[in-house]
Amino acid sequence: MTALQVALLGYGTVGKGVYQTIHQHQARIRKLLGREVKVAAVLVKDLSKHELPDQEVILTDQFSDILGIEHIDVVIDAIVGVEPGFTYLQEAIKKGCHVITANKEMFAYHSSTLQNLAAEHGVTVGFEATVAGGIPIIQTLKKLLNANKVQSLQGILNGTSNFILTKMREEQLSFSEALTLAQQLGYAEADPANDIEGHDAFYKAVILSEVLFGEQPVWEDTVREGIAEITIDQIDYFHSLGLRFKHVASLEKAADAIKCSVKPVLVSSSHPLYQVENVQNAINIEADIVGSISLQGPGAGMFPTASAIIEDLIHIDDKEYIPCFDEELSPVSSATASVWVILGKSAIIDLPDSVSIIRKIGDTAWLVEATEDSISAVKELPCFQLLGSVDQIPKVEKVY
Amino acid sequence: MTALQVALLGYGTVGKGVYQTIHQHQARIRKLLGREVKVAAVLVKDLSKHELPDQEVILTDQFSDILGIEHIDVVIDAIVGVEPGFTYLQEAIKKGCHVITANKEMFAYHSSTLQNLAAEHGVTVGFEATVAGGIPIIQTLKKLLNANKVQSLQGILNGTSNFILTKMREEQLSFSEALTLAQQLGYAEADPANDIEGHDAFYKAVILSEVLFGEQPVWEDTVREGIAEITIDQIDYFHSLGLRFKHVASLEKAADAIKCSVKPVLVSSSHPLYQVENVQNAINIEADIVGSISLQGPGAGMFPTASAIIEDLIHIDDKEYIPCFDEELSPVSSATASVWVILGKSAIIDLPDSVSIIRKIGDTAWLVEATEDSISAVKELPCFQLLGSVDQIPKVEKVY
Repeated sequence: MTALQVALLGYGTVGKGVYQTIHQHQARIRKLLGREVKVAAVLVKDLSKHELPDQEVILTDQFSDILGIEHIDVVIDAIVGVEPGFTYLQEAIKKGCHVITANKEMFAYHSSTLQNLAAEHGVTVGFEATVAGGIPIIQTLKKLLNANKVQSLQGILNGTSNFILTKMREEQLSFSEALTLAQQLGYAEADPANDIEGHDAFYKAVILSEVLFGEQPVWEDTVREGIAEITIDQIDYFHSLGLRFKHVASLEKAADAIKCSVKPVLVSSSHPLYQVENVQNAINIEADIVGSISLQGPGAGMFPTASAIIEDLIHIDDKEYIPCFDEELSPVSSATASVWVILGKSAIIDLPDSVSIIRKIGDTAWLVEATEDSISAVKELPCFQLLGSVDQIPKVEKVY
Repeated sequence: MTALQVALLGYGTVGKGVYQTIHQHQARIRKLLGREVKVAAVLVKDLSKHELPDQEVILTDQFSDILGIEHIDVVIDAIVGVEPGFTYLQEAIKKGCHVITANKEMFAYHSSTLQNLAAEHGVTVGFEATVAGGIPIIQTLKKLLNANKVQSLQGILNGTSNFILTKMREEQLSFSEALTLAQQLGYAEADPANDIEGHDAFYKAVILSEVLFGEQPVWEDTVREGIAEITIDQIDYFHSLGLRFKHVASLEKAADAIKCSVKPVLVSSSHPLYQVENVQNAINIEADIVGSISLQGPGAGMFPTASAIIEDLIHIDDKEYIPCFDEELSPVSSATASVWVILGKSAIIDLPDSVSIIRKIGDTAWLVEATEDSISAVKELPCFQLLGSVDQIPKVEKVY
């Protein structure tokens, strides 16, 4: 059988990881696919900056060169930004190529278009690498939890912001000092907005929403809050109460809409996201038969991302399960109570009766429970949502 | 298309969970499978003790009645013990039925026989429910991490022993008090040996070993230590050092053999198993491309186990990937150092030079690193293996 021919768009960290992995694990991949895999061509922006270990592989800065190659079976997208990735992948699909992408921003915008186009042309779109790096969350949701319906999901989907929050607490760094450290270590870009303001995590949540619910949340209705306002004093104070800040992306199927947020929340020690530190990613899902399941692993990096891409490559010919989004999924009741930590001595006094105070947990912190109806009153106060059990949080004498 | 006919062996907690799930999620399952699923018959030991909600379903205490039904597509095994399950499933396979089992002990003994027999008869064997309840670890290893080779695995695979260790620490209970509590709550059997001595976790490790490495560890060479000897004083002492006892099953592909152990180990707070509490299960795997990935979730219970079985049911017709166990997997080097906590002031003095002392971590506790060659000297002393980073463990002035 002829080799499976791959074209690689981009030769940065991820591109190199894919290239090396294909070469290093050739024997293994051949056994799994029943045929050899060959990187036929690599597209780069600047030819002068790159050299490939193998002289037979075409190195080009023109996408038309890639399309001109007679047999390309799979195009792997390891570049960033919505364009030119979106245009390239559309063209590749129209030419009959399977595509695999690690490009989260592009895919958050255009996943439907690409997947519909792929279905028309009888090819597949692999996108495991767009969310949480090496954690096989997309395939877990698509292939392993079919009988289950996932009702809600919470994830640490951005390693950079998680690294910053971890270092602020562990090393007593200010936000900007921790950001600088993240930049020095190569975790954060020169312009870190994408990570620390939650855009990157939001793109990933959007992609997960399509897999889970068959549709995206309304982008404008999404809460997206960054972590730049969090102070070391806040971190220390909540640490003394056994709570940690995590920058959490949440998805929930409510009765009328998909609720999506990316924001800093407080997490208690019983919650699976509590001990997810540094650049780790993790996802906790609530499914209606099995209950709560968590996955944790490396959210980025050369080989974790390459792993996700290569696993997609092994499975390009798999049959797709047709998800049944139309079914009556009992949505999380809009009356579901959420738990919040409210800060400030005076704040607590003006709460409406519909917000129930659980207890005082610190000098200036109260734990309250709000229903969907009373939540707006809570949100007007200095507050953070709390995930996890409240049992381990200290009890303080109530003093009003 | 005619309905998929299922026979259910056993109508205890798991059997009832499967029965109810099939009925409750009929619409969903029909969409996924393209046909209806019908429970045609249920086998029980004592007819007088059971009544089915649906009168059309055959309730019998004779397996021959099940085999006598003309079209049974799938036999689901929700009984315990090696026999009669093994005999029943062999007969079902020979009759051309797919089988799905939750019976870990039986499957640890006979997985090869059943899988070979199934291959001969063109049917499949689902066994997701045998390991870690609702956590889809078997399918993750079989379907999602194909290009990856897993080198080692560590898991909390028994919820009962984990519950006991958690309650001992949290509620300051003795081992026997915590065991009694587990029995009162229905987590532990009247005869708890299977859980607390590590037999149950060992069966699960054996099943995982076959999936990972294509073979079982040599049973006689397995270390299997229970948790009954752990005292509340030990738990408190190590808790003060930031360490927790976990009853951990480990698998590792060494150069010459598969190493398997089930034993109490100390876990530091950076390790994914540290915060796995109560009846939760979790598995941490080290794979050669992606790195370290963890899964956590409910390890037992009516619906988590039913979930695993129903997900297997959805996938009975899937193509099986042929794993390539014969490939050169760089085994974990036998020179790999392991970290141990050694107890007792005098113990540390007699260690051979090949054991390197990392540091003193408490009044009577030292942290040491042992290689494969020097490990026997460590094991002669009062000691526990340590998992996770040592960075968070207190430093104490060295005083020899």
